[in-house]
Amino acid sequence: MNSQNKRKTASEPVSELTTNRLSVYLRCLNQLEAASVETISSQALAEQFHLNAAQIRKDLAYFGEFGVRGVGYYVKDLKRHLRQILGLDRKLRVAVMGAGNLGLALADYPGFRREGFEIVAMFDIADAKIGDRSKSGVPIHDLKELKKVVRRDRFDIAVIAVPAESAQRVLEQVVAAGIKAVLNFSPGAIKVPAGVKMKSVDLTVSLESLSFYLAQGIDDGH
Amino acid sequence: MNSQNKRKTASEPVSELTTNRLSVYLRCLNQLEAASVETISSQALAEQFHLNAAQIRKDLAYFGEFGVRGVGYYVKDLKRHLRQILGLDRKLRVAVMGAGNLGLALADYPGFRREGFEIVAMFDIADAKIGDRSKSGVPIHDLKELKKVVRRDRFDIAVIAVPAESAQRVLEQVVAAGIKAVLNFSPGAIKVPAGVKMKSVDLTVSLESLSFYLAQGIDDGH
Repeated sequence: MNSQNKRKTASEPVSELTTNRLSVYLRCLNQLEAASVETISSQALAEQFHLNAAQIRKDLAYFGEFGVRGVGYYVKDLKRHLRQILGLDRKLRVAVMGAGNLGLALADYPGFRREGFEIVAMFDIADAKIGDRSKSGVPIHDLKELKKVVRRDRFDIAVIAVPAESAQRVLEQVVAAGIKAVLNFSPGAIKVPAGVKMKSVDLTVSLESLSFYLAQGIDDGH
Repeated sequence: MNSQNKRKTASEPVSELTTNRLSVYLRCLNQLEAASVETISSQALAEQFHLNAAQIRKDLAYFGEFGVRGVGYYVKDLKRHLRQILGLDRKLRVAVMGAGNLGLALADYPGFRREGFEIVAMFDIADAKIGDRSKSGVPIHDLKELKKVVRRDRFDIAVIAVPAESAQRVLEQVVAAGIKAVLNFSPGAIKVPAGVKMKSVDLTVSLESLSFYLAQGIDDGH
């Protein structure tokens, strides 16, 4: 049923950079499918989306033989394989901790739903917010109810969008409630308990990288 | 005055991964300074913040000799150097395109201001929003006024937080108004005009990377 599992359990770990690239390929294939493209070579895929053809072949070869000689990749097939590899062939349920502007933006972010992530709940501590809903209808629960809601709604991933000073405490509550995967938007260092996978998105780092290029003067197109 | 300039203009380009790490070091130094730590070795820095000591030494050595034998780094000095290298020794002015939840969250994101970025303006096309302000007081202008506001308020970086279907058009307007550095939050492929540095933050990629780890079963702490 899932022929990739054989390779996924190989001892060599797959780096986060690789999974990030698989995500990017998947996004390209979505666009090709929307444009009714049925097959594409690694070369054409690379040229159209400013990627590296050798890297594409290497990344995909790690998970199996998806290309067909003289044809390239079948867009629909490769897309299905990538979704399997990334674990997107089942719906993943996500909760957002913090119902401020950032939390609300994330709860309604259209890209998540399109890729199979379902935002099922938000949590906050402000009485004025508890019981309310985001624009797209995600309910805002009392943080005190976290364990109860996790048991009932069984979500897989928690997104941390609370102020920096609350982030560590909220992470610990999330972990105590049994959540094993966390996407963190709070700046500053956080200690991650063992057995939990946390990925941090630091918006300041992205801006500082632009600052560096501005300080140097910009001379390339990317 | 800025002794790093000598090395910054060397022909070997500095990768985005390096500038991202410099940003992370800066964030660690902020915490050390707040805790009144005056000196730290690369080894202690690495241990405290789960970094790699050899990598720290290599990254910093590229820009000059900041360490002192038997002492390590002076926290205040190294922080000042890193801010210079990253171009943060001047205030950078930022505008946010799109005043939805995401744009409003970014306009009020406390990390930006703390690191020296000043959010000076937002732009939208909705009459109901134009003339209003974010919670922290950032004014929302009519997108039609972009060129005029750029001339008057002279910002350096534009952040794109508009719906995917408007992103390409808004990017072109931003570039036509003379902005050379763009941080993009819109999912999907965007063509970047020459001479412009764009960095994309794709929130879906971060979630998919977590999905991959969930699909494999999690066995490490990070």
